[in-house]
Amino acid sequence: MTTPERVESAIAERRAIVNDAVEEQLPIKKPERLYSASRYLLDAGGKRLRPTVLLLIAEAVSDVDPLSADYRTFPAPDGEEIDLLSAAVSIEVIQSFTLIHDDIMDDDDLRRGVPSVHREYDTETAILAGDTLYSKAFEYMLETGAPAGRSVEAIGELATTCTEICEGQALDIDFEGRSEVTTEEYLEMIEFKTAVLYAAAASIPAMLLGCDRETIDSLHGYGLDIGRAFQIQDDLLDLTVPSDELGKQRGSDLVEGKRTVITLHARNQGIDVDDLVSDSPTDAEIEAAVDRLRTAGSIDFAREMANELVGSGKDRLEVLPEGEPRALLEGIADYLVERKY
Amino acid sequence: MTTPERVESAIAERRAIVNDAVEEQLPIKKPERLYSASRYLLDAGGKRLRPTVLLLIAEAVSDVDPLSADYRTFPAPDGEEIDLLSAAVSIEVIQSFTLIHDDIMDDDDLRRGVPSVHREYDTETAILAGDTLYSKAFEYMLETGAPAGRSVEAIGELATTCTEICEGQALDIDFEGRSEVTTEEYLEMIEFKTAVLYAAAASIPAMLLGCDRETIDSLHGYGLDIGRAFQIQDDLLDLTVPSDELGKQRGSDLVEGKRTVITLHARNQGIDVDDLVSDSPTDAEIEAAVDRLRTAGSIDFAREMANELVGSGKDRLEVLPEGEPRALLEGIADYLVERKY
Repeated sequence: MTTPERVESAIAERRAIVNDAVEEQLPIKKPERLYSASRYLLDAGGKRLRPTVLLLIAEAVSDVDPLSADYRTFPAPDGEEIDLLSAAVSIEVIQSFTLIHDDIMDDDDLRRGVPSVHREYDTETAILAGDTLYSKAFEYMLETGAPAGRSVEAIGELATTCTEICEGQALDIDFEGRSEVTTEEYLEMIEFKTAVLYAAAASIPAMLLGCDRETIDSLHGYGLDIGRAFQIQDDLLDLTVPSDELGKQRGSDLVEGKRTVITLHARNQGIDVDDLVSDSPTDAEIEAAVDRLRTAGSIDFAREMANELVGSGKDRLEVLPEGEPRALLEGIADYLVERKY
Repeated sequence: MTTPERVESAIAERRAIVNDAVEEQLPIKKPERLYSASRYLLDAGGKRLRPTVLLLIAEAVSDVDPLSADYRTFPAPDGEEIDLLSAAVSIEVIQSFTLIHDDIMDDDDLRRGVPSVHREYDTETAILAGDTLYSKAFEYMLETGAPAGRSVEAIGELATTCTEICEGQALDIDFEGRSEVTTEEYLEMIEFKTAVLYAAAASIPAMLLGCDRETIDSLHGYGLDIGRAFQIQDDLLDLTVPSDELGKQRGSDLVEGKRTVITLHARNQGIDVDDLVSDSPTDAEIEAAVDRLRTAGSIDFAREMANELVGSGKDRLEVLPEGEPRALLEGIADYLVERKY
């Protein structure tokens, strides 16, 4: 058993290492405006949860003590040395690219408490910064020093993941214009839009370290489960956390008419979710809307679904050796649905 | 010696094959709006010059008669079978992604004689269609069946090429806001923005077929040379070809204040190129501006530079066995600066 404090310090320790690696691998060089825009959101913050999952899974499959091995020359079970930090940076850079392009598409002004990239710079630069991070991620994934066959497997996972993220975002946009969306459709959408990147973060280290197919598949499933739980928790936080703690407008999903598992449940209870708030709602209006959702049981419904996914994800970790890294991965699953921001 | 007619039919034959492969590998599936937007520009036309270069280089290095071998199971010199069409589609799909995003950034309404993707659909869908093609290109490059080491080399080339294309586009945007741009800076910009994708198209087949480093590097240089010549010819065509033949507004570079080797030369002759045309110029105004550039010797200067690059590119083909494929690759170099659209 691990404690929330140990989980949070495990995340913080790896975040610091990943941040140093980002600075090292993505320096602000010429053309300076392009690279400074590419770094802007990465420098603005972020918990680095996906890279943390990637690094912890490596420690679990190689059965080494947490932080005892250098992530740049990480020992695979068969003796190969793998630069796992390069893979971790690759995943974080993909995450950053999708946020930059999503903010343009959704015309969101704020992200991580600072202006979104297209607001701080301009739309042209933001499109191009996202495109640059996209190819950089593939460059980094090729720089792990893994045997060619394993690199090909990791690159293939990265490419299909990116395609699915685009499909998920397309579904998300499509849903906004539709009156009827089923819970199954919503779950497929968040699987593509959000969960597949957790699945990549969880399975790619196993690929690079030469694990067997069963291990890779189980870890992929862990990532999908906790990634879906993460998205549901994100949807909950959008409703329940004040704007200043959230780093963006509270209730923005309601304003934008986004489908979430919460509003889908509420609709099934007969609530007219498209009419819950005005276009520029006051805090009191948001509060009243959330109260209606809570009374309808929609908040609890979403919480339970997230908890079930976390339970399922933790079960899939049984493929890993017991020990501190596995315990921390279980703790991260819990953290994703217990976090307050 | 080959004739322009044989070159044009070699391009047409391979275009038809590549178009079939695009339909096969990029079907319009769910989410339909996303995939239909992703296919839209590919279906609107295009000469498929880069895939044609890729396929002809394969025939040259494997020393097989043109179109005598199946591109899906193409024989490498060492007996491996490579799906070169998948690599050809990958390159064309990257080209398409860059055009879609460039049109958003430049706010161009027309492309290939039809509305640009963000005009036909919307900006959100166009960003996402470009992003989808981006990852699809990496998927296709992984599906050639080449030995893993060669796949890694090809993917690495593709990734750095995409990064350089973004850097080139950033430089292009930066130049519009600057009064002084040197010819060296311009040539670096078009190398990144345009020529590197020709270099990838020329070198990747050699990588996949297992050629030695000298051959790969020479072919890369051929691509860079003809790619730069192609861009200079594009700049010339923008000035000299009527809008209806061009598929977009004639003289748009002058209106948008784009730096080209033509306007850079004219500026050095003392012409105020930022004041040559108004914001919505008539045909007569464009014609008068082009006359001034012609009198200043700027048109001829650009033509000569393109011709020199074509000559240099052809010299680099000496690394290939003599024969019909090599002759066609020489002919394509000439075609790039002789084409009228």
